[in-house]
Amino acid sequence: MKNKIKVIAFDADDTLWVNEPYFRETEEQFADLLEDFLPRHNIMAELYKTEIANLPLYGYGIKGFMLSMMETVLSITEGKANLEIINRVLQLGQEMLNKPVELLDGVEDVLKTLFGKYKLVVATKGDLLDQQRKLTKSGLDHYFHHIEIMSDKQERDYQKLLKHLDCKPEEFLMLGNSLKSDVLPVLSIGGHAVHIPYHTTWVHEHIEHTIEHPNFYQMESLADVLPKLI
Amino acid sequence: MKNKIKVIAFDADDTLWVNEPYFRETEEQFADLLEDFLPRHNIMAELYKTEIANLPLYGYGIKGFMLSMMETVLSITEGKANLEIINRVLQLGQEMLNKPVELLDGVEDVLKTLFGKYKLVVATKGDLLDQQRKLTKSGLDHYFHHIEIMSDKQERDYQKLLKHLDCKPEEFLMLGNSLKSDVLPVLSIGGHAVHIPYHTTWVHEHIEHTIEHPNFYQMESLADVLPKLI
Repeated sequence: MKNKIKVIAFDADDTLWVNEPYFRETEEQFADLLEDFLPRHNIMAELYKTEIANLPLYGYGIKGFMLSMMETVLSITEGKANLEIINRVLQLGQEMLNKPVELLDGVEDVLKTLFGKYKLVVATKGDLLDQQRKLTKSGLDHYFHHIEIMSDKQERDYQKLLKHLDCKPEEFLMLGNSLKSDVLPVLSIGGHAVHIPYHTTWVHEHIEHTIEHPNFYQMESLADVLPKLI
Repeated sequence: MKNKIKVIAFDADDTLWVNEPYFRETEEQFADLLEDFLPRHNIMAELYKTEIANLPLYGYGIKGFMLSMMETVLSITEGKANLEIINRVLQLGQEMLNKPVELLDGVEDVLKTLFGKYKLVVATKGDLLDQQRKLTKSGLDHYFHHIEIMSDKQERDYQKLLKHLDCKPEEFLMLGNSLKSDVLPVLSIGGHAVHIPYHTTWVHEHIEHTIEHPNFYQMESLADVLPKLI
């Protein structure tokens, strides 16, 4: 792999830093607010249904999640709750936006080792401002050429990314925690992909799949990629 | 100018297509919802204050605007309104996100003429998904190398953009309707800038300024740029 790759793209959330557990935590707090109206698992199901329905309109990220929580409050309470519940939802979202950044193990060492040898980029879904803020808080920004915010991570989105980077598919390596978003579409267009699973994955990103592909590498942690690249 | 420039960046909202009037229209409808609580100009002032306070957290774009409208409802009604008002705010925002794209005069001709002669990009604040959707709806996407979503348009943001584009400042031309965002920071870092005013500008983008600069051009419409570039 080391002779071919020129650009290495890192997924951000749950690849560089903790993210999904914060969503799970907020969902639990959100369910607390609505327990008088519906059992918890129904609240969760309604929220998930609303999020998925809104993805084409809002895209990924915390602001869209906040708006979906609002909409879920309206549908679950049938408009019968107090406005204070909306205040709590705003607070929950703002707390998420203000969370500190907790780096995953070994991330900085890997970046330090690869820096200068490859063009390193962050390739992530979500809100630009939020991801940029996390990158700044992480102290990792000087390792990266830039952050690429992708509205989705399907084949056509990666093709756009490669065009934009002026990079051939065979020179491109993507590292991430989602088989569906970080691995499969990249392999389909001729790139290389490393999967580093994280213990919590949003159900929307789940796939049942065993991957056999010459450009695919399954790894336990980010540091395992170094022997392939150095 | 024509011998130096390699990359031409277009602001999107109110440079390529109508945007600000939709915000003004939605603000009027928002004020309708709260007239029982406060005079209209106070509602507008409270909304504006909330938006500005939230900019560092939410950034630019419709989703942040929706969340700021929610917060304004809470502060103005002191929690005493019916939840239905939140439903209306969600509807107002979703209507904005679903608006058709109305191109400004001459835009397509200008892009057609410049295409192939320069690298054309869209450089805009706002939500990636929303701007990308507008670009797709506009039918203009094939003219552009890519859309660059900027979390802000200050000098350091343009410096990041130029690094990312591998472009020298003197090879860069920005066209837009905001002196504050599209012109002044670009001139400061050594680029070229064209100002094409639009009849409606958000008060946050207003500046009192007369610009005298060798790299600055004031124009009436986008088409006026062609004689300088062809």
